[in-house]
Amino acid sequence: MANTNAEKIFEMTGAEAVLTERQDLRQYLTGVSTSFGYVLSDSEGTVFYTDPRYLERAKTVLDGSGIKVGLFKGPVEKLFAKYKQVAVPLSSTTFPFYKKLADTGIEVVDSEPAFTKAMSVKQPYETEFIKKACEIADRAFVALLPKIREGMSENEVAAELEYLMRQAGASGTSFDTIVAFGANSSIPHHETSLRKLCFGDIVLIDFGCKVGGYCSDCTRTFLFGDDGKHGRFKETYARVLSSHMLAKEKIADGMTGRDADAIARGELEKYNLAEYFTHSLGHGIGINIHEFPRLSPKSEDILINGMVFSDEPGVYFEGDFGIRIEDTVMLKDGKVISLTDSDKNLIIL
Amino acid sequence: MANTNAEKIFEMTGAEAVLTERQDLRQYLTGVSTSFGYVLSDSEGTVFYTDPRYLERAKTVLDGSGIKVGLFKGPVEKLFAKYKQVAVPLSSTTFPFYKKLADTGIEVVDSEPAFTKAMSVKQPYETEFIKKACEIADRAFVALLPKIREGMSENEVAAELEYLMRQAGASGTSFDTIVAFGANSSIPHHETSLRKLCFGDIVLIDFGCKVGGYCSDCTRTFLFGDDGKHGRFKETYARVLSSHMLAKEKIADGMTGRDADAIARGELEKYNLAEYFTHSLGHGIGINIHEFPRLSPKSEDILINGMVFSDEPGVYFEGDFGIRIEDTVMLKDGKVISLTDSDKNLIIL
Repeated sequence: MANTNAEKIFEMTGAEAVLTERQDLRQYLTGVSTSFGYVLSDSEGTVFYTDPRYLERAKTVLDGSGIKVGLFKGPVEKLFAKYKQVAVPLSSTTFPFYKKLADTGIEVVDSEPAFTKAMSVKQPYETEFIKKACEIADRAFVALLPKIREGMSENEVAAELEYLMRQAGASGTSFDTIVAFGANSSIPHHETSLRKLCFGDIVLIDFGCKVGGYCSDCTRTFLFGDDGKHGRFKETYARVLSSHMLAKEKIADGMTGRDADAIARGELEKYNLAEYFTHSLGHGIGINIHEFPRLSPKSEDILINGMVFSDEPGVYFEGDFGIRIEDTVMLKDGKVISLTDSDKNLIIL
Repeated sequence: MANTNAEKIFEMTGAEAVLTERQDLRQYLTGVSTSFGYVLSDSEGTVFYTDPRYLERAKTVLDGSGIKVGLFKGPVEKLFAKYKQVAVPLSSTTFPFYKKLADTGIEVVDSEPAFTKAMSVKQPYETEFIKKACEIADRAFVALLPKIREGMSENEVAAELEYLMRQAGASGTSFDTIVAFGANSSIPHHETSLRKLCFGDIVLIDFGCKVGGYCSDCTRTFLFGDDGKHGRFKETYARVLSSHMLAKEKIADGMTGRDADAIARGELEKYNLAEYFTHSLGHGIGINIHEFPRLSPKSEDILINGMVFSDEPGVYFEGDFGIRIEDTVMLKDGKVISLTDSDKNLIIL
């Protein structure tokens, strides 16, 4: 019985040793966020090797966890010299590091499938962090709305929102907050700018925060005042929302990411909007803001209970406007539940 | 004459084609921050291939730059199929990507030395962004001090500081802000917590922000009230400050990172403090918060005019307290100038 994530990954890979350098995977194994270190598991247990900057904290966090902490003295070859077989996350292992391993005659095994599988299905302690990150995002958005004023820049709105999340206990944002006014909303990954808010502007905000190292992700699109010129926007908003809600209703345990994406895309297709839905429906969320599974037209990833991902249909009319409605959701007992869940009916400030 | 960074890197590598996927290097070549894309340069010019999420923004930013924008349709092999020789940043190229290149019989050349050299010496437009990021950090720190109150958590202080930087126009932090109260200051990379501020606490804040994609980095250590028990702290503070200032005074164009580190370390050695200086003196700062050159006991990196790096001696007494004093500095006309420069005399709030 694996007591730690490190033991679980070690058992799943079945290799003689598992050596992990990648930051997100290291964090999954140790619960400590560090910019440097190696986690090494073999049949005798797990050691986290790091440098003096992190030593004291790592010892405190890992005390009693069964994971030992050691000072990394290098070269890295010393860590794996005694093994005949070592597992590393192959798709992200650099060529020079792979070569170091392979040149010693060690058999290199891929640990990535084990990490992907283990990390995609969230454990209760992980779900708690994600739920907290989602609650903070929801409350911050609600608290932001009355603070929005004509003449504020996109950057100022982002600053307010991030401050509200941070004050509520988030350790930071899970990605660069996107605030897009007016035609800027037609750029799916708009870079928040100094553009000032005008009466009648469409406002798109894509945001999230981190708690305990885990991310939330949410997008809302609304109107800053109704100048009476937004008939097409309102009609399209209703259709994106029905696409978002239909995905939430129909996504089920055992479905592929492709089938999930097709639910939302099919709904937009009815109104000839599918061609403006230029990205995929969603992505897994955890320590990383983008992880397994993918919910996209080509994804064969199987969605199963315990997975956390985004439901984010969007349509974009270049130079005109865009709409995206996104929640972080979880598959639980065969059904989708919303973890971010602030009001999605069209808000007109 | 190279007009763009892409042309410069292409000329420096001397390879038939330069293919760049890594995010920071892509940003250096295009000026656009994106989570996906490939930049491909050959004798006919440069194309930035990205996906629909970034297409509109990339076209706007790169209009008139000489860099074309294309929709990436994949597989990536199509991008390099016609070449006999392709340069990639080898140390960060993943094994599977390297294998894709090598399996086609293409000669793989390393583009990383060219990037490292080009990016370490800042161009005027880059220095302007860094200076702005430093000014914002300085002003935010000064504005933060009167807001600090007994009972605030480390997290709340970080939230205030980040808000001040964001409001002043920063696009975000350049790394997770470190706020450490009391004994937490003895952990060089302390994870900002809910620990509340008490009268007499030592406060260490390591922070920075981004402007135009470029980072600032600054650390200040001060006292929240003087409880009369800080004699050793005050004495040690003066020594860390003299180490910091001496490095600033003596670092010169053409010196190695090792020699620079030795200036600060030697000053601490005089007072038997060198053993508590458990990290290196500094690191290059630019698009990345840690880049070339390294100022450390083993670094052979040559410091030259136009480089921007940190000067950050620190001493840490486990479980007791720590002190770090850091400025972002630049080597200009053979001498070090401070880019962050808020008061470093001991502050007692």
